[in-house]
Amino acid sequence: AGDAEAGKGKIGLCVACHGTDGKGIMPMYPNLNGQNATYLESALKAYRDGNRTGGTAPIMAPMAANLSDQDIADIAAYYSQL
Amino acid sequence: AGDAEAGKGKIGLCVACHGTDGKGIMPMYPNLNGQNATYLESALKAYRDGNRTGGTAPIMAPMAANLSDQDIADIAAYYSQL
Repeated sequence: AGDAEAGKGKIGLCVACHGTDGKGIMPMYPNLNGQNATYLESALKAYRDGNRTGGTAPIMAPMAANLSDQDIADIAAYYSQL
Repeated sequence: AGDAEAGKGKIGLCVACHGTDGKGIMPMYPNLNGQNATYLESALKAYRDGNRTGGTAPIMAPMAANLSDQDIADIAAYYSQL
């Protein structure tokens, strides 16, 4: 399972668009705060594994490209508990 | 732009998994309440247009398949204002 505390140290790439509070800075970017962690994990993996190509996928795919499953679980845990 | 009132009448397919309150009934399903409407629209269009194939896409694609752009805007407006 994800570790929110560890995730807090892994959101360097995320905060520019999703902030530390999870609020998308533009209407096109989703709010992540309080989102279901399991869903966030599946979305991040879909971006990482090339299963999402529409909308903001061209931005998100490189962001997720180098994340391990544990990184993804930790980041998802962090934003879901906000 | 979307009409939340009209959207309320178009969420028949959505409520089974997302409820009328937008809360995903399972951790794998996203919460939609308070999500950015523009993001919800882009996500629904990505499912409809086959640009999302990972995770829950096999469930979501048929749900979105017959939605018009206006339907999508209205449904997004409804859930975003919760």
